Amino acid sequence: MSVTLVLGLVAGFAVTLVNREEFPTFGDGLWWAIVTLGTVGYGDLVPSNTPGRLVGGLVIVVGVTFIAFLTALVTSSFVSADQERAAEAERQRREGSDEETRQLLRQVLERLSVIEARLDDRP
Amino acid sequence: MSVTLVLGLVAGFAVTLVNREEFPTFGDGLWWAIVTLGTVGYGDLVPSNTPGRLVGGLVIVVGVTFIAFLTALVTSSFVSADQERAAEAERQRREGSDEETRQLLRQVLERLSVIEARLDDRP
Amino acid sequence: MSVTLVLGLVAGFAVTLVNREEFPTFGDGLWWAIVTLGTVGYGDLVPSNTPGRLVGGLVIVVGVTFIAFLTALVTSSFVSADQERAAEAERQRREGSDEETRQLLRQVLERLSVIEARLDDRP
Amino acid sequence: MSVTLVLGLVAGFAVTLVNREEFPTFGDGLWWAIVTLGTVGYGDLVPSNTPGRLVGGLVIVVGVTFIAFLTALVTSSFVSADQERAAEAERQRREGSDEETRQLLRQVLERLSVIEARLDDRP
Repeated sequence: MSVTLVLGLVAGFAVTLVNREEFPTFGDGLWWAIVTLGTVGYGDLVPSNTPGRLVGGLVIVVGVTFIAFLTALVTSSFVSADQERAAEAERQRREGSDEETRQLLRQVLERLSVIEARLDDRP
Repeated sequence: MSVTLVLGLVAGFAVTLVNREEFPTFGDGLWWAIVTLGTVGYGDLVPSNTPGRLVGGLVIVVGVTFIAFLTALVTSSFVSADQERAAEAERQRREGSDEETRQLLRQVLERLSVIEARLDDRP
Repeated sequence: MSVTLVLGLVAGFAVTLVNREEFPTFGDGLWWAIVTLGTVGYGDLVPSNTPGRLVGGLVIVVGVTFIAFLTALVTSSFVSADQERAAEAERQRREGSDEETRQLLRQVLERLSVIEARLDDRP
Repeated sequence: MSVTLVLGLVAGFAVTLVNREEFPTFGDGLWWAIVTLGTVGYGDLVPSNTPGRLVGGLVIVVGVTFIAFLTALVTSSFVSADQERAAEAERQRREGSDEETRQLLRQVLERLSVIEARLDDRP
Protein backbone atom coordinates (compact mmCIF):
# COMPACT_ATOMS: atom_id res chain seq x y z
CA MET A 1 0.00 0.00 0.00
CA SER A 2 2.61 2.54 1.09
CA VAL A 3 4.99 1.10 -1.55
CA THR A 4 2.38 1.99 -4.19
CA LEU A 5 1.97 5.45 -2.68
CA VAL A 6 5.72 6.07 -2.83
CA LEU A 7 5.89 4.63 -6.34
CA GLY A 8 3.00 6.87 -7.41
CA LEU A 9 4.90 9.93 -6.15
CA VAL A 10 8.15 8.81 -7.80
CA ALA A 11 6.44 7.92 -11.11
CA GLY A 12 4.48 11.20 -11.11
CA PHE A 13 7.77 13.06 -10.65
CA ALA A 14 9.71 10.92 -13.16
CA VAL A 15 7.18 11.50 -15.94
CA THR A 16 7.50 15.30 -15.52
CA LEU A 17 11.26 14.91 -16.04
CA VAL A 18 11.14 12.80 -19.22
CA ASN A 19 7.98 14.22 -20.83
CA ARG A 20 7.83 17.90 -19.82
CA GLU A 21 5.69 19.07 -22.78
CA GLU A 22 2.84 16.72 -21.76
CA PHE A 23 3.36 17.00 -17.98
CA PRO A 24 4.41 20.59 -17.17
CA THR A 25 3.80 20.38 -13.39
CA PHE A 26 4.35 17.76 -10.64
CA GLY A 27 0.59 18.01 -9.95
CA ASP A 28 -0.05 16.82 -13.53
CA GLY A 29 2.38 13.91 -13.08
CA LEU A 30 0.81 12.90 -9.77
CA TRP A 31 -2.75 13.10 -11.15
CA TRP A 32 -1.70 10.94 -14.13
CA ALA A 33 -0.01 8.40 -11.79
CA ILE A 34 -3.16 8.02 -9.64
CA VAL A 35 -5.40 7.71 -12.72
CA THR A 36 -3.03 5.05 -14.15
CA LEU A 37 -2.40 3.05 -10.95
CA GLY A 38 -6.20 2.72 -10.49
CA THR A 39 -6.40 1.51 -14.17
CA VAL A 40 -8.93 4.31 -14.80
CA GLY A 41 -6.91 5.90 -17.62
CA TYR A 42 -8.97 8.98 -18.56
CA GLY A 43 -6.51 9.89 -21.29
CA ASP A 44 -6.52 13.63 -20.44
CA LEU A 45 -2.78 13.28 -19.84
CA VAL A 46 -0.85 10.52 -21.64
CA PRO A 47 2.92 10.03 -22.03
CA SER A 48 3.71 11.10 -25.59
CA ASN A 49 7.37 10.13 -26.08
CA THR A 50 9.30 6.88 -25.63
CA PRO A 51 10.83 7.59 -22.16
CA GLY A 52 7.39 8.69 -20.92
CA ARG A 53 5.81 5.52 -22.31
CA LEU A 54 8.47 3.39 -20.58
CA VAL A 55 7.57 5.06 -17.25
CA GLY A 56 3.91 4.60 -18.18
CA GLY A 57 4.29 0.88 -18.93
CA LEU A 58 5.98 0.36 -15.58
CA VAL A 59 3.23 2.25 -13.73
CA ILE A 60 0.55 0.14 -15.49
CA VAL A 61 2.27 -3.13 -14.49
CA VAL A 62 2.63 -1.89 -10.89
CA GLY A 63 -1.01 -0.72 -10.84
CA VAL A 64 -2.39 -4.06 -12.05
CA THR A 65 -0.15 -5.97 -9.62
CA PHE A 66 -1.12 -3.68 -6.75
CA ILE A 67 -4.85 -4.19 -7.41
CA ALA A 68 -4.28 -7.97 -7.59
CA PHE A 69 -2.52 -7.90 -4.19
CA LEU A 70 -5.18 -5.61 -2.66
CA THR A 71 -7.95 -7.93 -3.89
CA ALA A 72 -6.00 -10.98 -2.65
CA LEU A 73 -5.55 -9.41 0.78
CA VAL A 74 -9.26 -8.61 1.22
CA THR A 75 -10.32 -12.00 -0.23
CA SER A 76 -7.97 -14.07 1.94
CA SER A 77 -9.16 -12.24 5.07
CA PHE A 78 -12.79 -13.00 4.11
CA VAL A 79 -11.96 -16.65 3.37
CA SER A 80 -9.99 -17.00 6.64
CA ALA A 81 -12.92 -15.63 8.65
CA ASP A 82 -15.29 -18.11 6.94
CA GLN A 83 -12.91 -20.99 7.56
CA GLU A 84 -12.27 -20.07 11.18
CA ARG A 85 -16.02 -20.29 11.75
CA ALA A 86 -16.31 -23.64 9.89
CA ALA A 87 -13.22 -25.03 11.65
CA GLU A 88 -14.58 -24.06 15.08
CA ALA A 89 -17.85 -25.96 14.41
CA GLU A 90 -15.88 -28.95 13.11
CA ARG A 91 -13.55 -28.84 16.14
CA GLN A 92 -16.48 -29.09 18.55
CA ARG A 93 -17.96 -31.97 16.58
CA ARG A 94 -14.59 -33.78 16.61
CA GLU A 95 -14.14 -33.22 20.33
CA GLY A 96 -17.62 -34.66 20.92
CA SER A 97 -16.76 -37.76 18.88
CA ASP A 98 -13.38 -38.24 20.60
CA GLU A 99 -15.02 -37.83 23.99
CA GLU A 100 -17.56 -40.52 23.06
CA THR A 101 -14.69 -42.91 22.24
CA ARG A 102 -12.88 -42.12 25.51
CA GLN A 103 -16.14 -42.63 27.42
CA LEU A 104 -16.19 -46.22 26.16
CA LEU A 105 -12.53 -46.59 27.21
CA ARG A 106 -13.34 -45.39 30.72
CA GLN A 107 -16.11 -48.03 30.87
CA VAL A 108 -13.49 -50.64 29.93
CA LEU A 109 -11.20 -49.46 32.74
CA GLU A 110 -14.06 -49.57 35.26
CA ARG A 111 -14.93 -53.13 34.20
CA LEU A 112 -11.28 -54.12 34.59
CA SER A 113 -11.33 -52.75 38.17
CA VAL A 114 -14.32 -54.92 38.93
CA ILE A 115 -12.56 -57.99 37.52
CA GLU A 116 -9.37 -57.26 39.48
CA ALA A 117 -11.36 -56.77 42.71
CA ARG A 118 -13.07 -60.12 42.13
CA LEU A 119 -9.74 -61.85 41.62
CA ASP A 120 -8.43 -60.26 44.86
CA ASP A 121 -11.43 -61.56 46.83
CA ARG A 122 -10.43 -65.14 46.22
CA PRO A 123 -7.77 -67.13 47.89
CA MET B 1 -22.49 -1.69 -2.04
CA SER B 2 -24.94 0.95 -0.83
CA VAL B 3 -21.99 2.87 0.70
CA THR B 4 -20.49 3.07 -2.80
CA LEU B 5 -23.85 4.18 -4.22
CA VAL B 6 -24.11 6.98 -1.66
CA LEU B 7 -20.48 7.94 -2.20
CA GLY B 8 -21.04 8.01 -5.97
CA LEU B 9 -23.95 10.43 -5.48
CA VAL B 10 -21.96 12.60 -3.04
CA ALA B 11 -18.83 12.61 -5.26
CA GLY B 12 -20.89 13.36 -8.37
CA PHE B 13 -22.41 16.33 -6.56
CA ALA B 14 -19.10 17.48 -4.98
CA VAL B 15 -17.32 17.61 -8.33
CA THR B 16 -20.03 19.91 -9.77
CA LEU B 17 -19.37 22.30 -6.86
CA VAL B 18 -15.58 22.50 -7.19
CA ASN B 19 -15.23 22.15 -10.98
CA ARG B 20 -18.33 23.79 -12.49
CA GLU B 21 -16.75 24.61 -15.90
CA GLU B 22 -16.07 20.89 -16.56
CA PHE B 23 -19.19 19.53 -14.79
CA PRO B 24 -22.06 21.98 -15.41
CA THR B 25 -24.89 19.61 -14.29
CA PHE B 26 -25.38 17.03 -11.51
CA GLY B 27 -26.07 14.49 -14.27
CA ASP B 28 -22.54 15.11 -15.62
CA GLY B 29 -21.05 14.66 -12.12
CA LEU B 30 -22.99 11.45 -11.54
CA TRP B 31 -22.05 9.99 -14.95
CA TRP B 32 -18.38 10.79 -14.28
CA ALA B 33 -18.60 9.20 -10.79
CA ILE B 34 -20.03 5.93 -12.20
CA VAL B 35 -17.45 5.84 -15.01
CA THR B 36 -14.66 6.42 -12.45
CA LEU B 37 -15.91 4.03 -9.71
CA GLY B 38 -16.04 1.23 -12.32
CA THR B 39 -12.43 2.18 -13.35
CA VAL B 40 -13.70 2.59 -16.92
CA GLY B 41 -12.49 6.20 -17.24
CA TYR B 42 -13.69 7.22 -20.72
CA GLY B 43 -12.14 10.66 -20.33
CA ASP B 44 -15.15 12.50 -21.83
CA LEU B 45 -15.40 14.34 -18.50
CA VAL B 46 -12.27 14.77 -16.37
CA PRO B 47 -11.65 17.03 -13.34
CA SER B 48 -9.56 19.93 -14.66
CA ASN B 49 -8.58 21.87 -11.52
CA THR B 50 -6.87 20.91 -8.25
CA PRO B 51 -10.01 20.58 -6.04
CA GLY B 52 -11.67 18.48 -8.77
CA ARG B 53 -8.59 16.25 -8.99
CA LEU B 54 -8.63 15.79 -5.20
CA VAL B 55 -12.25 14.60 -5.39
CA GLY B 56 -11.23 12.46 -8.39
CA GLY B 57 -8.30 10.84 -6.57
CA LEU B 58 -10.61 9.94 -3.69
CA VAL B 59 -13.24 8.45 -6.03
CA ILE B 60 -10.53 6.37 -7.78
CA VAL B 61 -9.26 4.97 -4.44
CA VAL B 62 -12.84 4.18 -3.35
CA GLY B 63 -13.59 2.59 -6.74
CA VAL B 64 -10.57 0.29 -6.66
CA THR B 65 -11.26 -0.65 -3.02
CA PHE B 66 -14.95 -1.27 -3.77
CA ILE B 67 -14.10 -3.60 -6.69
CA ALA B 68 -11.59 -5.44 -4.46
CA PHE B 69 -14.30 -5.96 -1.80
CA LEU B 70 -16.92 -6.99 -4.37
CA THR B 71 -14.51 -9.54 -5.87
CA ALA B 72 -13.55 -10.76 -2.38
CA LEU B 73 -17.22 -11.20 -1.43
CA VAL B 74 -18.05 -13.28 -4.52
CA THR B 75 -14.81 -15.28 -4.27
CA SER B 76 -15.19 -16.11 -0.58
CA SER B 77 -18.77 -17.28 -1.14
CA PHE B 78 -17.55 -19.56 -3.98
CA VAL B 79 -14.69 -20.89 -1.83
CA SER B 80 -17.01 -21.44 1.16
CA ALA B 81 -19.44 -23.43 -0.98
CA ASP B 82 -16.55 -25.60 -2.28
CA GLN B 83 -15.24 -26.15 1.23
CA GLU B 84 -18.62 -26.94 2.69
CA ARG B 85 -18.91 -29.72 0.12
CA ALA B 86 -15.37 -31.02 0.81
CA ALA B 87 -15.87 -30.76 4.59
CA GLU B 88 -19.13 -32.72 4.42
CA ALA B 89 -17.42 -35.60 2.56
CA GLU B 90 -14.51 -35.53 5.03
CA ARG B 91 -16.95 -35.47 7.99
CA GLN B 92 -18.66 -38.65 6.80
CA ARG B 93 -15.31 -40.35 6.28
CA ARG B 94 -14.19 -39.34 9.79
CA GLU B 95 -17.43 -40.53 11.36
CA GLY B 96 -16.96 -43.89 9.60
CA SER B 97 -13.44 -44.22 10.97
CA ASP B 98 -14.46 -43.21 14.51
CA GLU B 99 -17.35 -45.67 14.39
CA GLU B 100 -14.93 -48.45 13.37
CA THR B 101 -12.78 -47.64 16.43
CA ARG B 102 -15.80 -47.64 18.75
CA GLN B 103 -16.96 -50.94 17.23
CA LEU B 104 -13.71 -52.51 18.46
CA LEU B 105 -14.27 -50.95 21.88
CA ARG B 106 -17.73 -52.45 22.09
CA GLN B 107 -16.20 -55.86 21.29
CA VAL B 108 -13.79 -55.33 24.19
CA LEU B 109 -16.69 -54.53 26.52
CA GLU B 110 -18.56 -57.66 25.40
CA ARG B 111 -15.51 -59.84 26.01
CA LEU B 112 -15.14 -58.31 29.48
CA SER B 113 -18.75 -59.27 30.23
CA VAL B 114 -17.97 -62.86 29.26
CA ILE B 115 -14.91 -62.89 31.54
CA GLU B 116 -16.88 -61.41 34.46
CA ALA B 117 -19.65 -63.97 33.99
CA ARG B 118 -17.10 -66.79 34.00
CA LEU B 119 -15.55 -65.47 37.25
CA ASP B 120 -19.04 -65.29 38.80
CA ASP B 121 -19.75 -68.95 37.90
CA ARG B 122 -16.98 -70.19 40.15
CA PRO B 123 -16.94 -70.58 43.86
CA MET C 1 -19.89 -15.80 -19.50
CA SER C 2 -22.46 -16.33 -22.25
CA VAL C 3 -24.87 -14.08 -20.30
CA THR C 4 -22.27 -11.30 -20.58
CA LEU C 5 -21.85 -12.03 -24.29
CA VAL C 6 -25.60 -11.77 -24.88
CA LEU C 7 -25.79 -8.64 -22.72
CA GLY C 8 -22.91 -7.10 -24.66
CA LEU C 9 -24.78 -7.70 -27.92
CA VAL C 10 -28.04 -6.34 -26.48
CA ALA C 11 -26.33 -3.29 -24.92
CA GLY C 12 -24.37 -2.58 -28.11
CA PHE C 13 -27.64 -2.64 -30.03
CA ALA C 14 -29.60 -0.64 -27.41
CA VAL C 15 -27.08 2.20 -27.40
CA THR C 16 -27.40 2.60 -31.19
CA LEU C 17 -31.16 3.03 -30.72
CA VAL C 18 -31.06 5.68 -28.00
CA ASN C 19 -27.89 7.56 -29.05
CA ARG C 20 -27.73 7.34 -32.85
CA GLU C 21 -25.58 10.49 -33.37
CA GLU C 22 -22.75 9.00 -31.28
CA PHE C 23 -23.27 5.37 -32.34
CA PRO C 24 -24.31 5.34 -36.00
CA THR C 25 -23.70 1.60 -36.61
CA PHE C 26 -24.23 -1.64 -34.65
CA GLY C 27 -20.48 -2.25 -35.01
CA ASP C 28 -19.85 0.99 -33.10
CA GLY C 29 -22.27 -0.06 -30.34
CA LEU C 30 -20.71 -3.52 -30.06
CA TRP C 31 -17.14 -2.13 -29.96
CA TRP C 32 -18.19 0.33 -27.23
CA ALA C 33 -19.89 -2.49 -25.25
CA ILE C 34 -16.74 -4.66 -25.33
CA VAL C 35 -14.50 -1.72 -24.37
CA THR C 36 -16.86 -0.88 -21.47
CA LEU C 37 -17.49 -4.46 -20.20
CA GLY C 38 -13.70 -4.95 -19.96
CA THR C 39 -13.50 -1.61 -18.02
CA VAL C 40 -10.99 -0.40 -20.62
CA GLY C 41 -12.99 2.70 -21.57
CA TYR C 42 -10.94 4.25 -24.38
CA GLY C 43 -13.38 7.12 -24.69
CA ASP C 44 -13.38 7.08 -28.52
CA LEU C 45 -17.13 6.42 -28.30
CA VAL C 46 -19.05 7.61 -25.24
CA PRO C 47 -22.81 7.88 -24.68
CA SER C 48 -23.62 11.58 -24.98
CA ASN C 49 -27.28 11.83 -23.93
CA THR C 50 -29.22 10.72 -20.84
CA PRO C 51 -30.72 7.45 -22.25
CA GLY C 52 -27.29 6.49 -23.60
CA ARG C 53 -25.71 7.18 -20.20
CA LEU C 54 -28.37 5.03 -18.49
CA VAL C 55 -27.48 2.13 -20.82
CA GLY C 56 -23.80 2.94 -20.17
CA GLY C 57 -24.18 2.90 -16.38
CA LEU C 58 -25.88 -0.49 -16.59
CA VAL C 59 -23.12 -1.90 -18.82
CA ILE C 60 -20.45 -0.61 -16.39
CA VAL C 61 -22.18 -2.28 -13.41
CA VAL C 62 -22.54 -5.54 -15.37
CA GLY C 63 -18.89 -5.34 -16.52
CA VAL C 64 -17.50 -4.86 -13.01
CA THR C 65 -19.76 -7.63 -11.66
CA PHE C 66 -18.79 -9.96 -14.52
CA ILE C 67 -15.06 -9.42 -13.87
CA ALA C 68 -15.63 -10.04 -10.14
CA PHE C 69 -17.38 -13.36 -10.94
CA LEU C 70 -14.73 -14.38 -13.48
CA THR C 71 -11.96 -13.66 -10.96
CA ALA C 72 -13.92 -15.50 -8.24
CA LEU C 73 -14.37 -18.54 -10.49
CA VAL C 74 -10.67 -18.81 -11.35
CA THR C 75 -9.61 -18.10 -7.75
CA SER C 76 -11.96 -20.64 -6.17
CA SER C 77 -10.78 -23.34 -8.62
CA PHE C 78 -7.15 -22.57 -7.67
CA VAL C 79 -7.98 -22.60 -3.95
CA SER C 80 -9.96 -25.86 -4.28
CA ALA C 81 -7.04 -27.56 -6.03
CA ASP C 82 -4.68 -26.39 -3.24
CA GLN C 83 -7.07 -27.60 -0.56
CA GLU C 84 -7.71 -30.94 -2.22
CA ARG C 85 -3.96 -31.55 -2.08
CA ALA C 86 -3.69 -30.42 1.57
CA ALA C 87 -6.79 -32.43 2.56
CA GLU C 88 -5.42 -35.59 0.92
CA ALA C 89 -2.16 -35.32 2.92
CA GLU C 90 -4.13 -34.67 6.12
CA ARG C 91 -6.45 -37.60 5.38
CA GLN C 92 -3.52 -40.02 5.13
CA ARG C 93 -2.04 -38.68 8.36
CA ARG C 94 -5.41 -39.09 10.12
CA GLU C 95 -5.87 -42.61 8.83
CA GLY C 96 -2.39 -43.48 10.11
CA SER C 97 -3.25 -42.11 13.56
CA ASP C 98 -6.62 -43.89 13.67
CA GLU C 99 -4.99 -47.14 12.59
CA GLU C 100 -2.42 -46.77 15.41
CA THR C 101 -5.31 -46.43 17.91
CA ARG C 102 -7.10 -49.48 16.49
CA GLN C 103 -3.84 -51.45 16.60
CA LEU C 104 -3.78 -50.93 20.36
CA LEU C 105 -7.40 -52.04 20.55
CA ARG C 106 -6.60 -55.24 18.66
CA GLN C 107 -3.82 -55.90 21.19
CA VAL C 108 -6.42 -55.51 23.96
CA LEU C 109 -8.70 -58.02 22.25
CA GLU C 110 -5.84 -60.51 21.89
CA ARG C 111 -4.94 -60.19 25.56
CA LEU C 112 -8.57 -60.77 26.47
CA SER C 113 -8.51 -64.01 24.44
CA VAL C 114 -5.48 -65.16 26.41
CA ILE C 115 -7.23 -64.38 29.70
CA GLU C 116 -10.40 -66.20 28.61
CA ALA C 117 -8.38 -69.24 27.51
CA ARG C 118 -6.62 -69.31 30.86
CA LEU C 119 -9.95 -69.19 32.71
CA ASP C 120 -11.21 -72.06 30.53
CA ASP C 121 -8.17 -74.20 31.39
CA ARG C 122 -9.11 -74.34 35.01
CA PRO C 123 -11.66 -76.42 36.70
CA MET D 1 2.56 -14.15 -17.52
CA SER D 2 5.01 -14.77 -20.34
CA VAL D 3 2.08 -15.86 -22.54
CA THR D 4 0.57 -12.40 -21.98
CA LEU D 5 3.92 -10.76 -22.76
CA VAL D 6 4.19 -12.69 -26.04
CA LEU D 7 0.56 -11.94 -26.87
CA GLY D 8 1.13 -8.24 -26.13
CA LEU D 9 4.04 -8.20 -28.60
CA VAL D 10 2.06 -10.11 -31.23
CA ALA D 11 -1.07 -7.95 -30.77
CA GLY D 12 0.99 -4.74 -30.85
CA PHE D 13 2.51 -5.89 -34.13
CA ALA D 14 -0.78 -7.18 -35.58
CA VAL D 15 -2.58 -3.89 -35.01
CA THR D 16 0.12 -1.99 -36.95
CA LEU D 17 -0.52 -4.33 -39.89
CA VAL D 18 -4.31 -3.98 -40.02
CA ASN D 19 -4.67 -0.35 -38.89
CA ARG D 20 -1.59 1.50 -40.16
CA GLU D 21 -3.15 4.99 -40.23
CA GLU D 22 -3.85 4.84 -36.47
CA PHE D 23 -0.73 2.84 -35.52
CA PRO D 24 2.16 3.97 -37.76
CA THR D 25 4.97 2.36 -35.69
CA PHE D 26 5.47 -0.90 -33.77
CA GLY D 27 6.15 1.28 -30.70
CA ASP D 28 2.62 2.69 -31.01
CA GLY D 29 1.13 -0.80 -31.31
CA LEU D 30 3.08 -2.06 -28.30
CA TRP D 31 2.15 0.97 -26.16
CA TRP D 32 -1.53 0.48 -27.10
CA ALA D 33 -1.31 -3.27 -26.26
CA ILE D 34 0.13 -2.58 -22.77
CA VAL D 35 -2.46 0.14 -22.09
CA THR D 36 -5.23 -2.26 -23.19
CA LEU D 37 -3.99 -5.44 -21.44
CA GLY D 38 -3.87 -3.47 -18.15
CA THR D 39 -7.47 -2.28 -18.86
CA VAL D 40 -6.21 1.30 -18.52
CA GLY D 41 -7.40 2.39 -21.97
CA TYR D 42 -6.20 6.00 -22.23
CA GLY D 43 -7.75 6.34 -25.66
CA ASP D 44 -4.75 8.20 -27.15
CA LEU D 45 -4.51 5.34 -29.65
CA VAL D 46 -7.64 3.35 -30.51
CA PRO D 47 -8.25 0.88 -33.35
CA SER D 48 -10.34 2.77 -35.90
CA ASN D 49 -11.33 0.11 -38.47
CA THR D 50 -13.02 -3.30 -38.21
CA PRO D 51 -9.87 -5.53 -38.37
CA GLY D 52 -8.23 -3.29 -35.74
CA ARG D 53 -11.29 -3.55 -33.51
CA LEU D 54 -11.28 -7.36 -33.86
CA VAL D 55 -7.65 -7.41 -32.68
CA GLY D 56 -8.66 -4.93 -29.95
CA GLY D 57 -11.58 -7.06 -28.74
CA LEU D 58 -9.29 -10.08 -28.47
CA VAL D 59 -6.67 -8.10 -26.53
CA ILE D 60 -9.37 -6.83 -24.10
CA VAL D 61 -10.65 -10.40 -23.47
CA VAL D 62 -7.08 -11.62 -22.92
CA GLY D 63 -6.29 -8.65 -20.64
CA VAL D 64 -9.34 -9.22 -18.41
CA THR D 65 -8.64 -12.98 -18.27
CA PHE D 66 -4.96 -12.37 -17.51
CA ILE D 67 -5.81 -10.01 -14.62
CA ALA D 68 -8.33 -12.58 -13.28
CA PHE D 69 -5.63 -15.29 -13.33
CA LEU D 70 -3.00 -13.00 -11.79
CA THR D 71 -5.42 -12.05 -8.99
CA ALA D 72 -6.38 -15.73 -8.53
CA LEU D 73 -2.72 -16.75 -8.28
CA VAL D 74 -1.88 -14.15 -5.62
CA THR D 75 -5.13 -14.82 -3.72
CA SER D 76 -4.75 -18.61 -3.66
CA SER D 77 -1.16 -18.29 -2.40
CA PHE D 78 -2.39 -16.00 0.41
CA VAL D 79 -5.25 -18.36 1.27
CA SER D 80 -2.94 -21.42 1.20
CA ALA D 81 -0.51 -19.73 3.61
CA ASP D 82 -3.41 -18.90 5.96
CA GLN D 83 -4.73 -22.45 5.78
CA GLU D 84 -1.34 -24.06 6.26
CA ARG D 85 -1.05 -22.11 9.53
CA ALA D 86 -4.62 -23.04 10.63
CA ALA D 87 -4.12 -26.71 9.62
CA GLU D 88 -0.85 -26.94 11.57
CA ALA D 89 -2.59 -25.68 14.76
CA GLU D 90 -5.48 -28.11 14.19
CA ARG D 91 -3.07 -30.98 13.53
CA GLN D 92 -1.35 -30.45 16.89
CA ARG D 93 -4.69 -30.28 18.65
CA ARG D 94 -5.80 -33.54 16.94
CA GLU D 95 -2.58 -35.31 17.80
CA GLY D 96 -3.03 -34.25 21.43
CA SER D 97 -6.56 -35.67 21.48
CA ASP D 98 -5.52 -38.93 19.77
CA GLU D 99 -2.63 -39.32 22.20
CA GLU D 100 -5.05 -38.86 25.12
CA THR D 101 -7.19 -41.70 23.73
CA ARG D 102 -4.17 -43.96 23.25
CA GLN D 103 -3.00 -43.14 26.79
CA LEU D 104 -6.24 -44.66 28.09
CA LEU D 105 -5.67 -47.69 25.87
CA ARG D 106 -2.19 -48.18 27.31
CA GLN D 107 -3.72 -48.08 30.81
CA VAL D 108 -6.11 -50.83 29.70
CA LEU D 109 -3.19 -52.95 28.45
CA GLU D 110 -1.31 -52.44 31.74
CA ARG D 111 -4.36 -53.51 33.74
CA LEU D 112 -4.69 -56.58 31.57
CA SER D 113 -1.06 -57.49 32.35
CA VAL D 114 -1.82 -57.25 36.06
CA ILE D 115 -4.85 -59.52 35.66
CA GLU D 116 -2.89 -62.06 33.63
CA ALA D 117 -0.09 -62.08 36.21
CA ARG D 118 -2.62 -62.65 38.96
CA LEU D 119 -4.13 -65.60 37.06
CA ASP D 120 -0.64 -67.05 36.57
CA ASP D 121 0.10 -66.86 40.31
CA ARG D 122 -2.59 -69.31 41.09
CA PRO D 123 -2.59 -72.98 40.70
